[in-house]
Amino acid sequence: MQHPNRYPSRGSRNAGRNNFIMEYFYIPELKPGTAVTDLSGAEARHMMKVLRYQPGDEVYATNGRGQEFRLIIRRVQPNKVTLEVCSVRAGEREPKHPLTLAPAVLKGDKLSQVVEAAAELGVKEIIPFRSARVVGRLSETKYRRLRQVAVSGMKTALRTVLPEVRPAREFSELVADFPHYERVVVAYEEERVRRLEEVLEPAVESVLVVIGPEGGFTPEEVAAMSAAGARLFTLGPRRFRAETAAIAAVTLCLARLGDLQ
Amino acid sequence: MQHPNRYPSRGSRNAGRNNFIMEYFYIPELKPGTAVTDLSGAEARHMMKVLRYQPGDEVYATNGRGQEFRLIIRRVQPNKVTLEVCSVRAGEREPKHPLTLAPAVLKGDKLSQVVEAAAELGVKEIIPFRSARVVGRLSETKYRRLRQVAVSGMKTALRTVLPEVRPAREFSELVADFPHYERVVVAYEEERVRRLEEVLEPAVESVLVVIGPEGGFTPEEVAAMSAAGARLFTLGPRRFRAETAAIAAVTLCLARLGDLQ
Repeated sequence: MQHPNRYPSRGSRNAGRNNFIMEYFYIPELKPGTAVTDLSGAEARHMMKVLRYQPGDEVYATNGRGQEFRLIIRRVQPNKVTLEVCSVRAGEREPKHPLTLAPAVLKGDKLSQVVEAAAELGVKEIIPFRSARVVGRLSETKYRRLRQVAVSGMKTALRTVLPEVRPAREFSELVADFPHYERVVVAYEEERVRRLEEVLEPAVESVLVVIGPEGGFTPEEVAAMSAAGARLFTLGPRRFRAETAAIAAVTLCLARLGDLQ
Repeated sequence: MQHPNRYPSRGSRNAGRNNFIMEYFYIPELKPGTAVTDLSGAEARHMMKVLRYQPGDEVYATNGRGQEFRLIIRRVQPNKVTLEVCSVRAGEREPKHPLTLAPAVLKGDKLSQVVEAAAELGVKEIIPFRSARVVGRLSETKYRRLRQVAVSGMKTALRTVLPEVRPAREFSELVADFPHYERVVVAYEEERVRRLEEVLEPAVESVLVVIGPEGGFTPEEVAAMSAAGARLFTLGPRRFRAETAAIAAVTLCLARLGDLQ
């Protein structure tokens, strides 16, 4: 679909209103020293066929590793676009504190809703895990989809760091990795007292936030997490779907760390 | 689909683990003086066919107007279940501060994602509105769907107040209603400084939070909202889909008001 009204002038197209960048392209091949790069596949088709950019137009891209590139479209061939790098700079929209989200594997497409929103909001890493009450399965197809929506989320948010989506791991492996984070917090429906503010200080450097499956954690799992240093917190007396809990918990953690301002 | 493992004993079924109520039914006909009520339609079929309750079993229901009812199944007929009221009490999971969410009408099914999550999280009222850059349409079918997911969200969250979903109104009508709220806050992507904490104090009694459409607000709309007393706040430097912004903003407002603890 074309949006002539949203892109009134080709030259100013990517400046958008008030000089906002309107789109990022994701070109992982870009490196700080790159002078010229070719783009093909879906991203090239989107650029030329959907957004109708033309040679001479300026576009922005990220490599997903922290840099933002300003590029000029130099040549358009069937299925290939040649781009010249004009400038490169460090992205300026990344959270200061790395936040990792570990959501239980959920049924259907729910995990991709969580991953897309979490990628926009600003998480650095997503680790799906299987615990006793997990009923969903993370097939290879679903896992690929999670990685795709992480790219979408990064692009929407104009982020320059692609959130890493890890392959699903077992609950015990997740707990064994707790020491890699300065703080581990768990949104737990049977915790009735402690709020996130009480278990997470703004100065904490790296945080892992854990969200259980639809059926919750078993008492043994909660004990194992607490023994490994995790702190439980409440999201209040109402019961949420796992995907709502995950998005709310990520929002509260980022806000608490000063990374939603 | 049956879940024999999740409902191991018919008698204790609704007690769940640790005495949590596992489901609420929505029976708007229930009043504090009701002694016996009949349930038919989808809710009755769900009770008997999916969850496989039987005569003598205890169930919980809400009327969506603040009360929780404990009932016993007395008689099952084709398409009709007769329930006897055992006890009634005021719901205990409602936020203390009424929060209204006004999201712009969004494309496709996005508004129903927002309404379901917002209903779980605890909003009291949802007012979709049309502004200059709204491209979606709220058809009668989509509006009915919003009201359905508000019921789903209430039931999931074990709330006793059904969030009201208002028919879509024009932007100017929304602004004209600002005086009905003690505080109006707007998540605005070009506000770069003020955080929600700076524009919303925990003691504020009633809050309206406004979220723009995919294309944002026009400068004239922002000026009109500010002139009518609204306060703008930032969700940080990253750009969010409207649905992510809405869920994040509701989460932050409820947390700020002390209603996620």
